[in-house]
Amino acid sequence: MDTAYVIDTFFTLFSITLIILMVPGFAMLEAGLVRTKNVSSVLTVNVMIYAVASMAFILIGYTLAFGELHNESMSKWAFFMFQMAFVGKAINIMSGGVGERAKLFPLTIFTIVMGGFIYPAVVNMSWGVDWIKGTMFDINMVDLAGSTVIHSTGGWALLAAILVIGARKGRYVGNQIRVIPASNIPLVVLGAMLLWIGWFGFNGGSVGGISTKELADSVALTIFNTNVAGLAGAISVGVLGYIRYRLFDITMILNGALGGLVAVTAGAHLFTLYDAVVVGLIGGALVVLAVPLFDRFRIDDPVGALSVHLVNGIWGTLAVGIFAYDAASGITFVNQLKGVGEIAIFVFVVSYAVIYLINKFIPFRATDEEQVQGLDVSECGLEAYPEFKRAI
Amino acid sequence: MDTAYVIDTFFTLFSITLIILMVPGFAMLEAGLVRTKNVSSVLTVNVMIYAVASMAFILIGYTLAFGELHNESMSKWAFFMFQMAFVGKAINIMSGGVGERAKLFPLTIFTIVMGGFIYPAVVNMSWGVDWIKGTMFDINMVDLAGSTVIHSTGGWALLAAILVIGARKGRYVGNQIRVIPASNIPLVVLGAMLLWIGWFGFNGGSVGGISTKELADSVALTIFNTNVAGLAGAISVGVLGYIRYRLFDITMILNGALGGLVAVTAGAHLFTLYDAVVVGLIGGALVVLAVPLFDRFRIDDPVGALSVHLVNGIWGTLAVGIFAYDAASGITFVNQLKGVGEIAIFVFVVSYAVIYLINKFIPFRATDEEQVQGLDVSECGLEAYPEFKRAI
Amino acid sequence: MDTAYVIDTFFTLFSITLIILMVPGFAMLEAGLVRTKNVSSVLTVNVMIYAVASMAFILIGYTLAFGELHNESMSKWAFFMFQMAFVGKAINIMSGGVGERAKLFPLTIFTIVMGGFIYPAVVNMSWGVDWIKGTMFDINMVDLAGSTVIHSTGGWALLAAILVIGARKGRYVGNQIRVIPASNIPLVVLGAMLLWIGWFGFNGGSVGGISTKELADSVALTIFNTNVAGLAGAISVGVLGYIRYRLFDITMILNGALGGLVAVTAGAHLFTLYDAVVVGLIGGALVVLAVPLFDRFRIDDPVGALSVHLVNGIWGTLAVGIFAYDAASGITFVNQLKGVGEIAIFVFVVSYAVIYLINKFIPFRATDEEQVQGLDVSECGLEAYPEFKRAI
Repeated sequence: MDTAYVIDTFFTLFSITLIILMVPGFAMLEAGLVRTKNVSSVLTVNVMIYAVASMAFILIGYTLAFGELHNESMSKWAFFMFQMAFVGKAINIMSGGVGERAKLFPLTIFTIVMGGFIYPAVVNMSWGVDWIKGTMFDINMVDLAGSTVIHSTGGWALLAAILVIGARKGRYVGNQIRVIPASNIPLVVLGAMLLWIGWFGFNGGSVGGISTKELADSVALTIFNTNVAGLAGAISVGVLGYIRYRLFDITMILNGALGGLVAVTAGAHLFTLYDAVVVGLIGGALVVLAVPLFDRFRIDDPVGALSVHLVNGIWGTLAVGIFAYDAASGITFVNQLKGVGEIAIFVFVVSYAVIYLINKFIPFRATDEEQVQGLDVSECGLEAYPEFKRAI
Repeated sequence: MDTAYVIDTFFTLFSITLIILMVPGFAMLEAGLVRTKNVSSVLTVNVMIYAVASMAFILIGYTLAFGELHNESMSKWAFFMFQMAFVGKAINIMSGGVGERAKLFPLTIFTIVMGGFIYPAVVNMSWGVDWIKGTMFDINMVDLAGSTVIHSTGGWALLAAILVIGARKGRYVGNQIRVIPASNIPLVVLGAMLLWIGWFGFNGGSVGGISTKELADSVALTIFNTNVAGLAGAISVGVLGYIRYRLFDITMILNGALGGLVAVTAGAHLFTLYDAVVVGLIGGALVVLAVPLFDRFRIDDPVGALSVHLVNGIWGTLAVGIFAYDAASGITFVNQLKGVGEIAIFVFVVSYAVIYLINKFIPFRATDEEQVQGLDVSECGLEAYPEFKRAI
Repeated sequence: MDTAYVIDTFFTLFSITLIILMVPGFAMLEAGLVRTKNVSSVLTVNVMIYAVASMAFILIGYTLAFGELHNESMSKWAFFMFQMAFVGKAINIMSGGVGERAKLFPLTIFTIVMGGFIYPAVVNMSWGVDWIKGTMFDINMVDLAGSTVIHSTGGWALLAAILVIGARKGRYVGNQIRVIPASNIPLVVLGAMLLWIGWFGFNGGSVGGISTKELADSVALTIFNTNVAGLAGAISVGVLGYIRYRLFDITMILNGALGGLVAVTAGAHLFTLYDAVVVGLIGGALVVLAVPLFDRFRIDDPVGALSVHLVNGIWGTLAVGIFAYDAASGITFVNQLKGVGEIAIFVFVVSYAVIYLINKFIPFRATDEEQVQGLDVSECGLEAYPEFKRAI
């Protein structure tokens, strides 16, 4: 009894450290993808989101999501902190996609609302006390570690934010899409790899424990499949890119890996090795397809967050209904789709309303002058690399 | 019996890896905060300190601190290595603060003395065999993972070193304090976040084991509170900075987080969630107050180590006497203050004497010419970023 | 029974995450050591190797190495993934050494062969089902975590590749060896430290479990000795370099640490603390000696991989026959030497043949123009730091 409690607590603390490694992961990824003049700003957003979203979840959101409910199988502090570690991710997804033009103060206000209310409400319906249980809206989706609950939630909030805030100045001029290259590729690689490793804690920890043979097998399979889908996503994009351009674009390859990781997140505990390969290959391909598609609609997302998190969050959740279909247990495509759809509508509508409202009082969008100068100066009062002479 | 031994050994090894992640953490933080011309030098110091201090502790210091004493509840090699992982931290704190003008060779000599003798003597009195037990100097302070034993110890040694070595050339000219901006903000963020995560191993591992329900709860609470104080420290500085300057200075926000983490280190296992919030908020505010104060006294500390580690090391140790006051168990403000004061006097006096003495034979301070050229050339014979053209 | 299964599964998953942290470790190390114009290319190689080698090992290599064999003492998925985590390392060693002139597509083809066949064949003979058992070629070497199986295997493949591909353009001109400085020292330090920490999982996890008192002691001793040899390697190079040049060359110091880590990998579970110190000191010294030696023979290795991995892989394996000599158990210098020699011949001959063959159809070597321009443009279509003006 005690041994199981001890092992599950320890395992959850281990998972937590991996998940929190995703904070520098996201920060480095986004800092590498934006222009040098916006690097400090995007880093500050990442750190402030971790601080503010976590605190909002601790003081408000947790009770909203789980009520008095807590897992007796491990230390309540471990369970509490594990749930807390998730919240910032959903908002990180969103903050990256509005990078290079969204201001920090309104973003911090939205972070409080998202971390304290919107995300906890989603968790309430999916993993928590479930206030809509028994109603016609009851969600019976399988979503192990949040392809929908985290990733497409973050994605829908991002889409709402982009619609309110608009594209970066100079991104779409006339019929032209101006390519804005990533400023620091080593940071992109470092960030993506830290996210990849953090994912083992995300998905593995979501099994809920490791203290029996069955649980240990389930955790190991989950982490194995998680990794395989990441590998497959990277290979998928690498091969497609080489066929088409005879080039290996590392930022796309990494987004492919991340796409595979997002996609496998809903069903990593249920997939076979070959399912995980297919889910990841398709995940990577979806990134390749989606990136130009969003640009065609002038939805400006400097880090590719919509393609990675929203598109693959949906794909991964639906994939559970295909590869792990089991009518007896209620794992069906329809149930998965219902969950995806309800959370989509809830998150998009509420986020749009909240962002719209905040924007009325505290404008989200940096002025054209601020964008040209870079947000680092106007928002942070410091440059990211003050001693390096700029070539651009 | 065996299971507990196995689990505590494994848990300690897990904690060790997190603590050693603080080596690149400190290295990246300090490399990001100094000017590009001193980056290689500061990185070399960090690596050499890890190597030399650890080896000095392994071959000399451990026996001085713990004698034949070792914990039977886990593998002695895990316990030995856990203690070893601590030693470099105290000296890292010190090396950062004398960055950009202290030479490596004398610093290495001091590292041997600090790792082999000074730090082990502090541990002896606080956590070890305790040669002063029963005397009037007996220390009965509660200091879980070293707000005083590590952080203010490092801080006092740093203060001694700054007094001997002096400020960087050009830092204080007439009545002016010249601002020297950080050269690489992504490295600062990466370093601070690695430290933050490493702290979970530092404080969690210091509980001493996880193999019973009580220990598991204590470890989980400790890590939870550690994180909360970091969050609160960041928020504290973020809010204060925004109110005063309408800017988010990420280097100050991160120093606020680190200040909160230092402060919670003495009593993370005893605090409530709300105690941890308050300890962290005050910790962050102390950093904001202390940074200009040290500058007023022309104590030049390029990374803010005195504000983060010395000031908050003292605050955190005293905070145990306030928030976890328990006269029956001897946890009182007076006992805490006595421990802080005795270790302050011991470390400051001995460090000052040793640094003063080394400095007589091997000057610590790089010449003005070397400082203008940068220590990378004179000390390491290589530049950190030889291909990037300098704007400054 | 179940508890042991659970703990060993968890411990192996913990080890896996540390090993996979070596992927960004290698990537950052190599990205920091090459010139800025080849940084994206070297990063892409590292990511693609992780993806392709792991997938080849999962789908083909594992069965070749282990057949139906798998450890019943833990989840088969954990064991499978642990073995998978090793494969990329051997190829990373090789890819770094041919950096700045090897093209990605042929390197990817070789990665499939190496990950799917060559490396699994080496594992088969050493740790796996052992098809040569009972023959005159039977290998009875002790090689805990792969001083030979991983490190010198990678090193021999690298030597073969360098002989086929040749030196970088401009490296050896007439009688002159042109020094090409590392472009980003913080990345070098970060990468080396991530490798160092990853090594704890590599060597500790190779003990095979932690679920008894004996295993726990063995794992803790292994990780302790691993760290000690790294410390000793760094100190060795630091002292030698300071004596000779009055300078601390951080890239050499880190290569010394890595040399010590490679050397201790074969026998970390058998050495005493003092053995580990000596093995590490010699490991560091060997790096200092070997680096100029390879240059004398015009074997161009931009990251020092041959000195670190090949030379110290051999040294470490032989050191087991010296420091842990135990004729009764068959641990002898001759047995160690036989293993080293057989694997050397097998890997070098097969790798040379495969690389030679691939090179006939798909040339490995970038043209002189491509090398002058940098491989980032020709191979990846993007620059690593497009906004930083180049001084060189």
